[in-house]
Amino acid sequence: MTGLSFSDIEAAAARIQVHKTNVVSSSILDQIAGSEHYAKHLLFKCELLQKTGSFKFRGASNAVMSLNETDARKGVCTHSSGNHAQALALAAKIRGIPAYVVMPSNSPQVKKSAVRGYGAQVIECEPTLQAREDAAKKVIEDTGATFIHPFNNYNVMAGQGTIGLEFVQQAQEMGTPLDAVIVPVGGGGMLSGISTAVRHLSPNTKVFAAEPINVNDCSRSYSAKSHQLNAVGATSVADGLLTNVGTNTLPIIMEKVDGVFTVSEEDIIRTTKLVWTYLKLCIEPSAAVGVAVALYNKEFRAKSEELDLRNIGVILCGGNVDIVKIARLIESIEA
Amino acid sequence: MTGLSFSDIEAAAARIQVHKTNVVSSSILDQIAGSEHYAKHLLFKCELLQKTGSFKFRGASNAVMSLNETDARKGVCTHSSGNHAQALALAAKIRGIPAYVVMPSNSPQVKKSAVRGYGAQVIECEPTLQAREDAAKKVIEDTGATFIHPFNNYNVMAGQGTIGLEFVQQAQEMGTPLDAVIVPVGGGGMLSGISTAVRHLSPNTKVFAAEPINVNDCSRSYSAKSHQLNAVGATSVADGLLTNVGTNTLPIIMEKVDGVFTVSEEDIIRTTKLVWTYLKLCIEPSAAVGVAVALYNKEFRAKSEELDLRNIGVILCGGNVDIVKIARLIESIEA
Repeated sequence: MTGLSFSDIEAAAARIQVHKTNVVSSSILDQIAGSEHYAKHLLFKCELLQKTGSFKFRGASNAVMSLNETDARKGVCTHSSGNHAQALALAAKIRGIPAYVVMPSNSPQVKKSAVRGYGAQVIECEPTLQAREDAAKKVIEDTGATFIHPFNNYNVMAGQGTIGLEFVQQAQEMGTPLDAVIVPVGGGGMLSGISTAVRHLSPNTKVFAAEPINVNDCSRSYSAKSHQLNAVGATSVADGLLTNVGTNTLPIIMEKVDGVFTVSEEDIIRTTKLVWTYLKLCIEPSAAVGVAVALYNKEFRAKSEELDLRNIGVILCGGNVDIVKIARLIESIEA
Repeated sequence: MTGLSFSDIEAAAARIQVHKTNVVSSSILDQIAGSEHYAKHLLFKCELLQKTGSFKFRGASNAVMSLNETDARKGVCTHSSGNHAQALALAAKIRGIPAYVVMPSNSPQVKKSAVRGYGAQVIECEPTLQAREDAAKKVIEDTGATFIHPFNNYNVMAGQGTIGLEFVQQAQEMGTPLDAVIVPVGGGGMLSGISTAVRHLSPNTKVFAAEPINVNDCSRSYSAKSHQLNAVGATSVADGLLTNVGTNTLPIIMEKVDGVFTVSEEDIIRTTKLVWTYLKLCIEPSAAVGVAVALYNKEFRAKSEELDLRNIGVILCGGNVDIVKIARLIESIEA
C-alpha cells in the first residue's frame, strides 16, 4: 500500500481543468537517439505548454480542488520560489480562494511578480529553510490555510499522474505506443504519479527516472534501497531538480520505477540547445534532463537495445526560464 | 480571375502530408493585446512546429506532389537559402525525386548542411541574383528539373492556404471563432493562400498582413494599388520577409486582404522575447511580426476596437534561428 492508486489519478483527471498538452517529435533528435543499426522514435510530452509553464499546475490544481468547502475558504499555503508557487497561485485563483506563498526575501523580483500576478499573497522571509518553515507555520496558524507540499502530498502526485494517463493514450492514438517513458526526478511527485498511471494502463511500458549527476540522491536511494540525501550545497543548472526525493514518493519509486539514469551538466546544456533548436521549444534545463538520458546516457542506450525499446516518451516538464541566461549557458559549452 | 481558388487549397489539403499544427494561447499576451475596457484573445497557429521548421513545407510539398510522374522523375530546383530550400528538399525526398538547390557560396554552412541533410544537391554560385538565376537555368537545362518558385507559384500558394483551412476550423472547435487573422508578408505566398481560404470559409473574418516597416513594399503597394519595390539593401531582423511581393501574389492580396500593418525593428525583437518567454516557442523574428502588430500597432488596435474584433489569429510562421544570435538581439534592446 503506497498511498497512491490509479483511481486517485482518474479522479484527478476528472476534477482538474488542464491543457491536454501536445506530443511532438523530431526526426533529427530520433537520429541522435538511435544508431545506424537501431532506430528509435522519441515522443515529447509538452508540459512546458501547461498553464503556468510547467506540469506543477496539475498537482496544485488537484490538491486545491480536493479541499472541502470549509477548508478551501481559508486558503492554501506553500513555501516555494519555483514552479509550484505559480501553479498553486493560479489553482487557488481559479477556485476563488486565497493563496499564501512564503518566499525568501532574496528571490528574484520576476518570480515574486509572477506569483503575485496570479493573485497570491507573497510573504517574504529570511533565506533559510528554518525561516521558511516558521513563516509558513505562522501563516497557517493565522489564517487556517492548508499547506500544500510541492511533491510529498498524494493529491499533488495524483494530479501529476494525469500526464501519464494522457501520454499513454496519445502515443497509442499516434500509432507509436510507448515502450518506455523517461521522467525527470527532483522530489519525485511527477515520477510517482506517472509511474502509477503507466504501470496500470500499460504494464509493459518501462518507466525510468532521469536525474542530474550532481544531485543524484534518487539514483543512490534507488540502488541502496534506502533514503539517501544530496550533499548540502550540491547544485545543477537543472534547478527544478535540486530537491531530495520525498519520504512519501520514494516507496512508490522503489516499487514502480524500472531504473534511474544520471546525466552531466554539459549534456544537460547541450540537450537544452538541441531542444530549442530542433523542437523549437524553450524548455528549462530541468526539462532537458530526460532528453539527455535518451540521447547521451550509455547505460540507457544499452538497456533500451537489450529490451528492444524503440518508442521512448520523454516529459518536457517546464519552460520557465530567463532566455538570455540560457543562451549564455549554451554559448559557454560552445566556447 | 486570380489564378488561385478555394478548390485548389482543398485539393492541396488532400494531397500533402503535413503536421496539423497546434493552436496555442497565453493569458499574459492577451492582457498586453487588450486593455482594461477591451478584452482580446490571441490564437497562435504554430507553423514553426511544421516539418522543416516552417510553413514553407506545405507549399513545397503541394508543388512537388502536383507534378506528373514524368516531370517528377527529373526533379525540382530552386534558388533560396532560406526555409523554402529545406522545405523543397524534404518534399522531394518524400516523393523520392531529386532536388537541386542553388545557394550563394557565402551562405552559412549550417544552412547548406540543413538542405543537404534533407537529401538535396546544393549547387553553389556567386552571391548575386544574376549568378543564382544563371545557375538555376543551367541546372534546369541539364536535368529537366522543374523550377519551384518560393511564392509566385499557384501550387505553392495553395499549399500555404491549407494553414487557413485548418486554422478556421480549429478556432471554431475551440469555441473562439476567428474575428481576424494576421499573416506576415514577404513574397505573399502564405498571405495569398490564407486569405483565399479564410474569405471562402469565413467571409466575416478579416485578413490582415503584417510587415516590417523597413521593408514595407506590400504596405506601399497596397495603398498605391500598384507594384512598389523595396529599396536595394533594405533589411530587417525579420529576414524571412525581405522579399518583394510577387507579381502573382499582389493581385490576390489587393482583392482579398483587408489591410497591411507595419512594425518597427524594436517591436519585432521585443515581441520575439515575449513569445519565447510566455508561449515558450522559439520563433524566428519573421514570426514575431504578426504578433507585434496585434500587441503594438496603434492603427491595428484602433481598427480592431472599431470593428469589434476580439478573437485574433496570428501565424507563427517559422522557427529556424540561431538561438545565441536571437538572445543577443534581445539583450540589445534591454541594454
